[in-house]
Amino acid sequence: MSADLELAPAGMAQRPTVVIIGAGFAGLAAARGLRHAAVEVIVLDRVNHHTFQPLLYQVATAGLSAPQIAAPIRHILRSQKNARVLLGAAVSIDAVNQKVILVDAEIGFDYLIVATGLTHWYFGNDDWAQHAPGLKTLDDALEIRRRILFAFERAERVADVQERAAWLTFAVIGGGPTGVELAGTLAEIARHTLTDEFRTIDPSHARVLLLEGGARVLNTYPKSLSLKAEQQLQRLGVEVELNARVTAVDAAGVSIEMNDRTLGTCEISAKSKRIEARTVLWAAGVQATPLARTLPGALDKIGRVLVAPTLQIEGFDSIFVVGDLVSIKQDGMAVPGVAYAAKQMGAYAARAIAQRVGEKGSRASTFAPFRYRDRGALATIGRKAAVAVLPGDLRLSGLPAWWTWLFVHIFFLIGFRNRITTLVDWLWAYLTYQRHARLILADRTELRESQRTP
Amino acid sequence: MSADLELAPAGMAQRPTVVIIGAGFAGLAAARGLRHAAVEVIVLDRVNHHTFQPLLYQVATAGLSAPQIAAPIRHILRSQKNARVLLGAAVSIDAVNQKVILVDAEIGFDYLIVATGLTHWYFGNDDWAQHAPGLKTLDDALEIRRRILFAFERAERVADVQERAAWLTFAVIGGGPTGVELAGTLAEIARHTLTDEFRTIDPSHARVLLLEGGARVLNTYPKSLSLKAEQQLQRLGVEVELNARVTAVDAAGVSIEMNDRTLGTCEISAKSKRIEARTVLWAAGVQATPLARTLPGALDKIGRVLVAPTLQIEGFDSIFVVGDLVSIKQDGMAVPGVAYAAKQMGAYAARAIAQRVGEKGSRASTFAPFRYRDRGALATIGRKAAVAVLPGDLRLSGLPAWWTWLFVHIFFLIGFRNRITTLVDWLWAYLTYQRHARLILADRTELRESQRTP
Repeated sequence: MSADLELAPAGMAQRPTVVIIGAGFAGLAAARGLRHAAVEVIVLDRVNHHTFQPLLYQVATAGLSAPQIAAPIRHILRSQKNARVLLGAAVSIDAVNQKVILVDAEIGFDYLIVATGLTHWYFGNDDWAQHAPGLKTLDDALEIRRRILFAFERAERVADVQERAAWLTFAVIGGGPTGVELAGTLAEIARHTLTDEFRTIDPSHARVLLLEGGARVLNTYPKSLSLKAEQQLQRLGVEVELNARVTAVDAAGVSIEMNDRTLGTCEISAKSKRIEARTVLWAAGVQATPLARTLPGALDKIGRVLVAPTLQIEGFDSIFVVGDLVSIKQDGMAVPGVAYAAKQMGAYAARAIAQRVGEKGSRASTFAPFRYRDRGALATIGRKAAVAVLPGDLRLSGLPAWWTWLFVHIFFLIGFRNRITTLVDWLWAYLTYQRHARLILADRTELRESQRTP
Repeated sequence: MSADLELAPAGMAQRPTVVIIGAGFAGLAAARGLRHAAVEVIVLDRVNHHTFQPLLYQVATAGLSAPQIAAPIRHILRSQKNARVLLGAAVSIDAVNQKVILVDAEIGFDYLIVATGLTHWYFGNDDWAQHAPGLKTLDDALEIRRRILFAFERAERVADVQERAAWLTFAVIGGGPTGVELAGTLAEIARHTLTDEFRTIDPSHARVLLLEGGARVLNTYPKSLSLKAEQQLQRLGVEVELNARVTAVDAAGVSIEMNDRTLGTCEISAKSKRIEARTVLWAAGVQATPLARTLPGALDKIGRVLVAPTLQIEGFDSIFVVGDLVSIKQDGMAVPGVAYAAKQMGAYAARAIAQRVGEKGSRASTFAPFRYRDRGALATIGRKAAVAVLPGDLRLSGLPAWWTWLFVHIFFLIGFRNRITTLVDWLWAYLTYQRHARLILADRTELRESQRTP
């Protein structure tokens, strides 16, 4: 272990060290699960905050401010005396020598819990990333917010009609929960929030397109709810294009290939189409964070780790992988990449390690495999529009699903203060259609340049 | 006028155009003052939001989120039908041809109100800027926040004792209101907010230095209040260094020259001193925004425009300059650079133009010179500590001044919603010492690089 990360109280040096990489839902649940265990916990993350990912789209669409959906990791864990939080990015794992390698240091571990989750995947077209940002982090959300707001500002200033229309066209690629949320909220902003604020353009003439490669949106949901979601999107003003495969993304727009599928037959005729859109958002592909490639063992086709039923890596039973980074099946079905599953996995790994440590030395002891308990699924579409599958296969859509969604999400927000101000903002937005966080924050380089002018 | 900025409704083309550059307190007051005038108002700003500058230091020190102290300019002016808002940076003024020049367009004017305010001035040492950011915009505030929080994170990871001490040393240069606010709040964070969150460092051992070149802090206030402010700072744990002239700022710290001034005599002996501080904040020098240099007429030594008593530029009576960009004396005293003065100047220019336009053509008509009505001055130092001079020369310090400051500032915050959530946050912070916005948001380039790793 490098001197850079020397661990403090000497008296505790005998306790085994558990390193947790990533403080999302899975990593935090693991850390909390170890609070009474006789271990030293080190939580390592690239950023200083835990992000409440289900509300990221609200930051991206200016409905909430960044601090409302995020809290410093060390603040969350402040009273857990056996946990220490370090800011830093893990570069690789040395599984044999039980070390996490950072750019400028190494951390030895007795147990490791890897919970770094997923990142964007552009189907091998990495150059699309600059034109179509994805939504995984707070920085992503602020970048998307900047682009959306800037597009309306440009449209107001541009005299050319075609150019103006392109600035007022928003293409969201991918009809999963994130794509649906972004498209629905964008339509709401254009129709309601920006009313009366522009003099040249009419924001309600903005086009919002949702481009989905498959035959329906929200394809992990029951078919009936997919259809309901599609109808609710259309009611909000979103143009939903199904069977639309993206073939190119550039600074000016998106090219797609439409599969004109006649159901019941096998005829598929493809036609290409070009969409001039200055704002393109990516909600289509995801892949494992690259750290997974430095672990021993097999990966699935998007790079997730194929773990044993105990979430351990075959042959390395001191290493657990939890959360979205895991590829695991249960009763023939993939465990879904949702917050509940991540929390359950984190808590499971913590229990397993606590049990091992408690049994002192008998490292070969076994424990029951991880079981995912399904808590249902919720996806919001926009104001008063959502779909939900609750335990017992109760299906909701429209307003009841929206209220369920709202209260579940605000209830699980970390921090009491956040809940109050978030509720105030939500209520305010609901009554007035206003979104309070409509700030274009320049990135630093641009700002410096403009300060130099002239 | 370029086609790029063609003005919309043809029926109104006969009305004179008033261009306002900058939507700070002065610019917004001018725009609002023209709401009933038979003119077309164009408000041009480099950013899309009005910033409530007196609370910027709270964003910099993670007490408030950016959207709580800022609102989109076009939202503020949405119901003023004769106003349109454009996002863009003015490069220069063509006073003779009555045009504002942008990078990509030109805007013709019949009347012009310049309200671009001040920016940082590093006494000619522009290379200090990268090491010691100043606090004028929301982007500045977010950069300062990032540096402060990152310093504590680094200190927690560094093993070398001297290096750790340098990360835990914060030097604020300049003992005016901004410097006093930053230093006081930094001390509060170190002593109270971060308690229990670190395992290696004790944040309350952090040193906060306030370096002031003159003989007292808050030198525009009565001497008795300067002394009170100094005492309150010291009580909060700030080391106040007076007569400390900065001679160098670099990545590792600050060099100063201390004038060991024995009052009453003329002996001054200087000695130099080096302060190792990884976080240095600039609150010392300001200068006029560069647009002032493209205006006709004389400037003062920090580049502010020397205007006639009617705030017009001598010889160009269609051009008004208002707010902090103006250098003007009243009864032998400089009109101070405070929000009240800026608002009064903006409103004055609007009245003057409305009067001219009302009198149709008699452009030579005169009006009474601008008179600044003093509303007092308030500076906050930290929790329960502030100083105030109210009209009638009522002087307050400590808790009464702090409450006055708090309510005056929240009352003037734009937007009812902002007032509610800001009060909730303030109350929360007051009761728990917590600051909810402690997020380190990477700048985009860093983020992309770290995503590429490995």
